[in-house]
Amino acid sequence: MSMKKEEALRKSKSRKGYGKQDKYERIIDAAVKVFAKKGFHKARISDIASQAGVADGTIYLYFKNKDDILIHIFEYKLQQIIELFEAEIEQEASPVFKLARFILLHFSMLGEDPNLAAVLTVELRQSHKFMKEYTPRKFGEFLKIITGIVIEGKDKGLFKDDVSPGVVKRALFGAIDEMGTFWMLAPRGKRGKYSLGDTARQVCDIFIRGLLKDPKVWDTRKGEFFNQKGGEL
Amino acid sequence: MSMKKEEALRKSKSRKGYGKQDKYERIIDAAVKVFAKKGFHKARISDIASQAGVADGTIYLYFKNKDDILIHIFEYKLQQIIELFEAEIEQEASPVFKLARFILLHFSMLGEDPNLAAVLTVELRQSHKFMKEYTPRKFGEFLKIITGIVIEGKDKGLFKDDVSPGVVKRALFGAIDEMGTFWMLAPRGKRGKYSLGDTARQVCDIFIRGLLKDPKVWDTRKGEFFNQKGGEL
Repeated sequence: MSMKKEEALRKSKSRKGYGKQDKYERIIDAAVKVFAKKGFHKARISDIASQAGVADGTIYLYFKNKDDILIHIFEYKLQQIIELFEAEIEQEASPVFKLARFILLHFSMLGEDPNLAAVLTVELRQSHKFMKEYTPRKFGEFLKIITGIVIEGKDKGLFKDDVSPGVVKRALFGAIDEMGTFWMLAPRGKRGKYSLGDTARQVCDIFIRGLLKDPKVWDTRKGEFFNQKGGEL
Repeated sequence: MSMKKEEALRKSKSRKGYGKQDKYERIIDAAVKVFAKKGFHKARISDIASQAGVADGTIYLYFKNKDDILIHIFEYKLQQIIELFEAEIEQEASPVFKLARFILLHFSMLGEDPNLAAVLTVELRQSHKFMKEYTPRKFGEFLKIITGIVIEGKDKGLFKDDVSPGVVKRALFGAIDEMGTFWMLAPRGKRGKYSLGDTARQVCDIFIRGLLKDPKVWDTRKGEFFNQKGGEL
């Protein structure tokens, strides 16, 4: 994990204070592990309590039920991810490199925290309550990072004028989410064919060349991006 | 629906014969309507029987349970879709236009058969059994259409040499599936912002320009594609 990432995570953690928040966090982290290992449907509240080192009843002081824990994981972790992504993307001057950074960060998360990735990409969809009743406002905030980059790229005359940021946002998220889900679900032996690093590079190539008025900008400058610190997965 | 599409559907239907197969088809079609209208979880076998005009018990002569009907819808309809896509794509000489045709067909399906689209994009994921236990071999066959086009494009020297057909296959499917799901779930008022036709064009632009060694090939020839018969949604 890069220095910048650690700093963003620390910032996000220290803001929460101690005591009550500390136990909340412990339960959230324990639930991520349990959901990833047992699957959402088979996981029991008592498994989460035991993993977190708290009494079963304590869980109900913080959460209504198992679906509620999942929603809290989603909101809490996504907030950390948004802060981390925004801090890292801010370091890049060009919207082209910002978009590449977004794609790289997404794939590097899968490698760095496979439990969280499994919960966010696979287990979440197992909760009927989450899929049908929850309005994922935080998810909208996350996707807005893409919209912001695309608008900046159009404003600077780099991206094609007829591009809709809303279409790019969903198409790009769909592409990286599908690749991520595949990677999470694939047996380890089959993953090798599509390493995270190579996949991230290819998705960068498609979307950035696809959006640029002059794709040669990326063809000639991408070496610079991948060679800089943090350009490798 | 174009002549070619009708022909492909007729071909696929006539192969099945009458009698038993006819009732099977009637139940499948009724289930698509019921699942799309009531949602998979709320739909009852008796709703499907009544929509199909058969006795409840008849359903169990053909299907084990509600999840089994969903799996049959998936296999049966996807087979028709594969035959239709292959027939239409075959008409295009260039792999560039073949890929554009694939994208256009996918989006036009959403508009032409919204019930089926709702079942395939949204309701399917509500079946725990389907998501966890079923190996979607037919889905693999569908995705292979993309792989075939990408390999042809590389062989003809049009697409970049470092492109992995497997990555493109999943990234493209992820993008069009996410756009499609969004379109299906969006309130009708919000859909207008992203018409199917405009979305399809933008996805064509991103992926085809992203893959081409020389994106100008698409920039200068796409008018020709969209102006030909069947180029409009």
